[in-house]
Amino acid sequence: MRTLIKNGTIVTAVDQYTGDVLVEGEKIAVIGTSLDIPAANVDKVIDAAGKYVLPGGIDVHTHMDMPFGGATSADDFETGTRAAAFGGTTTIVDFAIQYRGQTLHQAWETWTKKAEGKAVVDYGFHMIITELNDQVEGEMDALVKQGITSFKLFMAYPGVFMLDDGSIFKALLRTGKNGGTICMHAENGGVIDVLVQRALAEGKTAPKYHALTRPARAEAEATHRAIALAEIADVPIYIVHLSAAEALEMVTEARDRGLPAFAETCPQYLFLSYDNYEEPEFGGSKYVMSPPLRDKAKQDHLWRGLAFNDLQCISTDHCPFCMKEKRLGENDFSKIPNGAPGVETRMSLVYDGGVRPGRISLNRFVELTSTSPAKIFGLFPRKGTIAPGSDADIVVFDPNRTITLAARTLHMNCDYNPYEGRQVAGATDTVLSRGSLVIENGVFVGRKGAGSFLKRASRS
Amino acid sequence: MRTLIKNGTIVTAVDQYTGDVLVEGEKIAVIGTSLDIPAANVDKVIDAAGKYVLPGGIDVHTHMDMPFGGATSADDFETGTRAAAFGGTTTIVDFAIQYRGQTLHQAWETWTKKAEGKAVVDYGFHMIITELNDQVEGEMDALVKQGITSFKLFMAYPGVFMLDDGSIFKALLRTGKNGGTICMHAENGGVIDVLVQRALAEGKTAPKYHALTRPARAEAEATHRAIALAEIADVPIYIVHLSAAEALEMVTEARDRGLPAFAETCPQYLFLSYDNYEEPEFGGSKYVMSPPLRDKAKQDHLWRGLAFNDLQCISTDHCPFCMKEKRLGENDFSKIPNGAPGVETRMSLVYDGGVRPGRISLNRFVELTSTSPAKIFGLFPRKGTIAPGSDADIVVFDPNRTITLAARTLHMNCDYNPYEGRQVAGATDTVLSRGSLVIENGVFVGRKGAGSFLKRASRS
Amino acid sequence: MRTLIKNGTIVTAVDQYTGDVLVEGEKIAVIGTSLDIPAANVDKVIDAAGKYVLPGGIDVHTHMDMPFGGATSADDFETGTRAAAFGGTTTIVDFAIQYRGQTLHQAWETWTKKAEGKAVVDYGFHMIITELNDQVEGEMDALVKQGITSFKLFMAYPGVFMLDDGSIFKALLRTGKNGGTICMHAENGGVIDVLVQRALAEGKTAPKYHALTRPARAEAEATHRAIALAEIADVPIYIVHLSAAEALEMVTEARDRGLPAFAETCPQYLFLSYDNYEEPEFGGSKYVMSPPLRDKAKQDHLWRGLAFNDLQCISTDHCPFCMKEKRLGENDFSKIPNGAPGVETRMSLVYDGGVRPGRISLNRFVELTSTSPAKIFGLFPRKGTIAPGSDADIVVFDPNRTITLAARTLHMNCDYNPYEGRQVAGATDTVLSRGSLVIENGVFVGRKGAGSFLKRASRS
Amino acid sequence: MRTLIKNGTIVTAVDQYTGDVLVEGEKIAVIGTSLDIPAANVDKVIDAAGKYVLPGGIDVHTHMDMPFGGATSADDFETGTRAAAFGGTTTIVDFAIQYRGQTLHQAWETWTKKAEGKAVVDYGFHMIITELNDQVEGEMDALVKQGITSFKLFMAYPGVFMLDDGSIFKALLRTGKNGGTICMHAENGGVIDVLVQRALAEGKTAPKYHALTRPARAEAEATHRAIALAEIADVPIYIVHLSAAEALEMVTEARDRGLPAFAETCPQYLFLSYDNYEEPEFGGSKYVMSPPLRDKAKQDHLWRGLAFNDLQCISTDHCPFCMKEKRLGENDFSKIPNGAPGVETRMSLVYDGGVRPGRISLNRFVELTSTSPAKIFGLFPRKGTIAPGSDADIVVFDPNRTITLAARTLHMNCDYNPYEGRQVAGATDTVLSRGSLVIENGVFVGRKGAGSFLKRASRS
Repeated sequence: MRTLIKNGTIVTAVDQYTGDVLVEGEKIAVIGTSLDIPAANVDKVIDAAGKYVLPGGIDVHTHMDMPFGGATSADDFETGTRAAAFGGTTTIVDFAIQYRGQTLHQAWETWTKKAEGKAVVDYGFHMIITELNDQVEGEMDALVKQGITSFKLFMAYPGVFMLDDGSIFKALLRTGKNGGTICMHAENGGVIDVLVQRALAEGKTAPKYHALTRPARAEAEATHRAIALAEIADVPIYIVHLSAAEALEMVTEARDRGLPAFAETCPQYLFLSYDNYEEPEFGGSKYVMSPPLRDKAKQDHLWRGLAFNDLQCISTDHCPFCMKEKRLGENDFSKIPNGAPGVETRMSLVYDGGVRPGRISLNRFVELTSTSPAKIFGLFPRKGTIAPGSDADIVVFDPNRTITLAARTLHMNCDYNPYEGRQVAGATDTVLSRGSLVIENGVFVGRKGAGSFLKRASRS
Repeated sequence: MRTLIKNGTIVTAVDQYTGDVLVEGEKIAVIGTSLDIPAANVDKVIDAAGKYVLPGGIDVHTHMDMPFGGATSADDFETGTRAAAFGGTTTIVDFAIQYRGQTLHQAWETWTKKAEGKAVVDYGFHMIITELNDQVEGEMDALVKQGITSFKLFMAYPGVFMLDDGSIFKALLRTGKNGGTICMHAENGGVIDVLVQRALAEGKTAPKYHALTRPARAEAEATHRAIALAEIADVPIYIVHLSAAEALEMVTEARDRGLPAFAETCPQYLFLSYDNYEEPEFGGSKYVMSPPLRDKAKQDHLWRGLAFNDLQCISTDHCPFCMKEKRLGENDFSKIPNGAPGVETRMSLVYDGGVRPGRISLNRFVELTSTSPAKIFGLFPRKGTIAPGSDADIVVFDPNRTITLAARTLHMNCDYNPYEGRQVAGATDTVLSRGSLVIENGVFVGRKGAGSFLKRASRS
Repeated sequence: MRTLIKNGTIVTAVDQYTGDVLVEGEKIAVIGTSLDIPAANVDKVIDAAGKYVLPGGIDVHTHMDMPFGGATSADDFETGTRAAAFGGTTTIVDFAIQYRGQTLHQAWETWTKKAEGKAVVDYGFHMIITELNDQVEGEMDALVKQGITSFKLFMAYPGVFMLDDGSIFKALLRTGKNGGTICMHAENGGVIDVLVQRALAEGKTAPKYHALTRPARAEAEATHRAIALAEIADVPIYIVHLSAAEALEMVTEARDRGLPAFAETCPQYLFLSYDNYEEPEFGGSKYVMSPPLRDKAKQDHLWRGLAFNDLQCISTDHCPFCMKEKRLGENDFSKIPNGAPGVETRMSLVYDGGVRPGRISLNRFVELTSTSPAKIFGLFPRKGTIAPGSDADIVVFDPNRTITLAARTLHMNCDYNPYEGRQVAGATDTVLSRGSLVIENGVFVGRKGAGSFLKRASRS
Repeated sequence: MRTLIKNGTIVTAVDQYTGDVLVEGEKIAVIGTSLDIPAANVDKVIDAAGKYVLPGGIDVHTHMDMPFGGATSADDFETGTRAAAFGGTTTIVDFAIQYRGQTLHQAWETWTKKAEGKAVVDYGFHMIITELNDQVEGEMDALVKQGITSFKLFMAYPGVFMLDDGSIFKALLRTGKNGGTICMHAENGGVIDVLVQRALAEGKTAPKYHALTRPARAEAEATHRAIALAEIADVPIYIVHLSAAEALEMVTEARDRGLPAFAETCPQYLFLSYDNYEEPEFGGSKYVMSPPLRDKAKQDHLWRGLAFNDLQCISTDHCPFCMKEKRLGENDFSKIPNGAPGVETRMSLVYDGGVRPGRISLNRFVELTSTSPAKIFGLFPRKGTIAPGSDADIVVFDPNRTITLAARTLHMNCDYNPYEGRQVAGATDTVLSRGSLVIENGVFVGRKGAGSFLKRASRS
């Protein structure tokens, strides 16, 4: 199978030029200003004139088919990866969860069953550790060798997911030996639990109290602590879904001291804000996620962080629940399942709201949504760039086509969308995953189960 | 009883002038350039010409008669307060300890028994809380009303003293209502315990590993966290025995943002350093205390903090153990009782090493050793100044007299001194406690049991 | 002459207690809880019950009888110091100006003539240097010995007052030898002149353009530069009339590094803001001063600086021009005489707006308005405290009396007041200057010419 | 002319992969994993197996044929660009100097004559402005249109090159309109001149006083000021030859606030230090350059800045003077011509000292030495990358070949080398400039005059 993408504007994290890309099998084979290849020698020609030819998006934070507080996230690996592809994302890294009492291996098996035969694009796993002991530490080493090279820990949700500082520190030390990477949910769960209990005791049950009981300073504190523990352990650290300017400041300070501290933010923290929680008729519940949405006035800090590389990735924390599930918390905000849909809308939102107004460059857009996640999580150069030898995960993106975001027309399995009605300029036309068409001119032409598990590399 | 102190250089945190002080009963009654009082009208005249007349020192961090890991600190309230008086300190605030399973009231009773009838100068108590529940929170309110207005919590010593963040946060919130103050031992105990276990497992048992397993960053992290929790709770916080420049930086940043974050350091962190742990023949054990001594090169940061009011107090953490007790940890540094003698040497050390070389002014010396502790801990204006109406806790201090520090000649109940052989210029001649002579020209003339419990005020 | 002030609440920068003060001649002689002095032995008894007895205010930034751009400031040393006394200020330090081509000595003579025989309270001089050469450097040494121990330099007003960096640096180096102190007007005059010329060229002539052409960053830059030059010269520096939060940040950073950088702000920067420039009918001209008023939202930063000692003094930059003079700039904001009245309202404004809402303590109020200026400018302990031996510059201040600020009832020689109509609680009742009554229950009872030139001390 | 580079490891600022590059004429035409091109269809095949194929180095700071204080820099555009090519640099941007009284056009003409017909690789010009008026501002606009899109200003050398702040600010404002970029020599010349005069007056004439009279703080101050002025003017700023950690801190702080502040450093500041000035027998003169070499202990800060993108470029400030010229300052360090050779050694030094020990990645090495300079100075994508359509400026670099740096074997026209005897691993084998061989296996095969003037783009 040979596919020729003609006349597009090829964009990587550093380059931008007009040219042709020849895909052979699953790989990018040749790139040239103008490839002179007889029609007979290619199976498919895609005209990308006037379009961007981008490395496929990589979303390193999704939760497909995930149980949470009595509900399960609404997208499974089939619907979720299909929606991802529609949105220009060709790789996800999802989270397998070790529940207490389980081995990491059991968690991996469970999640493998969820994904295998379903995913339409490639996927990898982070492993969530909720209980650490010598046996689990040993499993960490094994997983790193098997391509699960990152581990997510929680500083929030005491009694459920939260690890104490000693255990976090042990896990960090372990990655210093096995080359893995710790990803941290950085919110001070002890403080938050006290605030939640007090709010409920005072009859404060509406969705907005979800935000009001998770102060920015509690995220900043945990972010600082996570970085400090990593500094003592002399290993890198990656903060997931950073939402607060105050937390970003901690990352910035660490980087100003030369520490390998990394962080991602998500589109919801760039485009939505606390105000959404005030939407009437339980509408605020749509935005219940952790960390919560923050003050609109501070979004500029996140954009600065993205532009100046204090934030390295934009992921989604895709974790949709339909309104029926959200209503589990109708009388108690702490029972609202945490999460919202996002895997499909990431690329268009960031292009429209980031590149078009000049907040970030086009190269930086590619870096934040694809190259940098690939490099940090051991997928580069297989994924994350357009270069000879890399996987042909390619997105033809029309910067001028305007679409209106709406739950009805989007493909995520969720009956609402946080950006309902928002118009964005910049949309995915055509998508290749390892050389095969998945989306063609906006139509799904992929195959359930075509996606493979990605064995990721450890830090060298 | 009327005592007239003549011709001294009277020094407060702001003033310095030559004059006379008339003491009537327990109080300072009159101050004047030259008080013309008939000899018949005074019971005692003290000639202070060429000397400083200072408010009595206040040491807000002592541990008299305290059980610790199988040993008990070597000074009780009699020997300890007598030594304090020899050193120019007329008030101590000691720590009563709630052991797990106890009420705060039981702790108070226990410590009252230790002090009553023994102390030769006045004393107050902080309450150490090691277990927090609703009942204990209620007791906190009661104690504040009874004059125990500060509570010490530990972020170190998991399983013994350490509280989790949720409990710390609850205690902070409570002081927002009852006007108490939280004092924090700020070291990340989880991290330290892992490091200690690993060091011991590797056969690293010498005293110096005490320091090497308690990194400065672990203190800085906990300091930052303590301040963050206090910020969320909207209350002040006081960091005890701050030792690391990195921790000071956290306090400085907080104050630069306008937060009521306060901290003390101790003479040992100003005059001793990590190098002491390398002393031969188990000599390093003399300096085993928590936090540990730090790098000599960073002491300047502490002096800057003292000069610029990012550190508000100098206390001692006086907690002496004789060499016999120290030897409990001869084969395991973690078993060395933590602590060292200091209550007697504070004023001379800080005068000699701080005021004489110009690191701090004479007024600032008074502020750091007396006025500021009094203000922060609810003793002002009764203690901490020389002003009409204040307690006549007065020290006649000779700035020119040089003494040599030595365990044999000092009065603390300890068979070694960390500063053995050090010469310091500046020594206490005469001390009054509430108008009564305790030390007269270097001789103890006080009375066991003369010291009273100080009911301290809460924050208004 | 012996005066007894009875039953007042005596307040210094550190103390607060109820007591009596006996004044003998020009000095404070005795202070006591309750002085038992036969009526026959005192000439005057002042009942201060329920009132504060404060050290007289010290305003280290006034411009009496000062020529400026074709006008002269409206208060001379008589009217100006009388107004000061009405407001509770008993010492001013005014600025003598060396015009280009003059010696410093000539400037001193000129200003001596303006003050002598006129001032009703004591006064000192700073010397403004507008031209520096070897001869002038020599004069600096001489002036320091004669009690003019501080020198003001300008980084603004090129061609008029501004010195280049080389000259500023030379002056700083000189104070390293002679013990003087450099006071800096810190605004980047080069930048401002360009902005002013461009604004005028674009027809932007209204008063508000005065502010819009003097950006906060231009003040911050100059503040940073002044401190850097002082750091290289290894001498202290004092920034006058700091107005911008951005400039304060530079002072804070310097102090965090241990540099002896000091700064004052003025009530106008705490209570007025850019919005005032928008007042109709040329009303904005009332507030034309340099630096200009800043954004209201940033005033909190200045209060933090005052509370945390990054700002050490509150002075006034008193320099009133009546509306007739202000109208010189009716068609060109750059021709509006710079300055506004303030010497009389300082103490009440800061008490009302600072102490009452709890932004600063009562002690800190005394420190900022009296003690700290006295210490920094070589007047302590003669001025700035209430202690035996100090000058009896005493203010009886009623914290509960409310007054309404108005040009008609105030005593400054100016036909408008920037705070017109503002009610403030806290007012001066009675004032002594070196033991003599100047204001008694709100009535002027002083004497023209009673004020003396103050020979100030150099840094030791 | 078609050249095929086979089997190399192609490295850009983001990518690294094994493949072939086909050059057609002056451009890169095709890149592929393995290009299957008949031998007859290519004129030249270069085997790059085991080598890096890098975009040609870009050195944006050279001074060829430049008069300085009675001497002239020893390399002209022929010898200088040939040496550059030997070292793997295929583009230089040199500085044309407007001497006072000249137009910018005259300066351009003068420098064009120096370069035309001589340069062996491509070159561009920055324009140094030493006098600014309306006419010169107009010329700035014209130059930007003609491809000289950057202007260097001096904050040092008063009376020679230095502009006052008003002029600097005007120039910055102008670039806001014409899309040019201001490059700043950031040292406070006023301060330095005073220090130099005082040192000489005290008989301090040795080379080391060059460094001792140019303190790091004077560089930091000017760096801060330059950024502040650019912030007010709302334009980017580029700091040349940043040498001091203290100055870097200013850039970092600016970037943390989101300002477009950029800076370069040079190999000499990374690998040499103040200690070199102490070399005997006037040896210190070899290192006399401005800013001077700094403390070895602070070099790590620069490496951190390079790794974390607070420094964006590494240039050389190549400006060699032979020892004969250096001796002009034998009795007066201020008369030593400022400058040292460097254009040839940059790539090997940075590879050896930066990439090999892991201080920066290989991609970052390419970015710092080629891509980032190209982007900042309007040469991208023509220069600075290996991508279809870009100029075939290509370096085949052997990471394993070790060379010894020595004046005798290097090709710069200078009789000493600052790194004499230093062994570095990583050397240039073969160099193409716009598709033509310039260096082949270490032999010069290029042509005098083959280099063209580069018309650079302005900021969009």
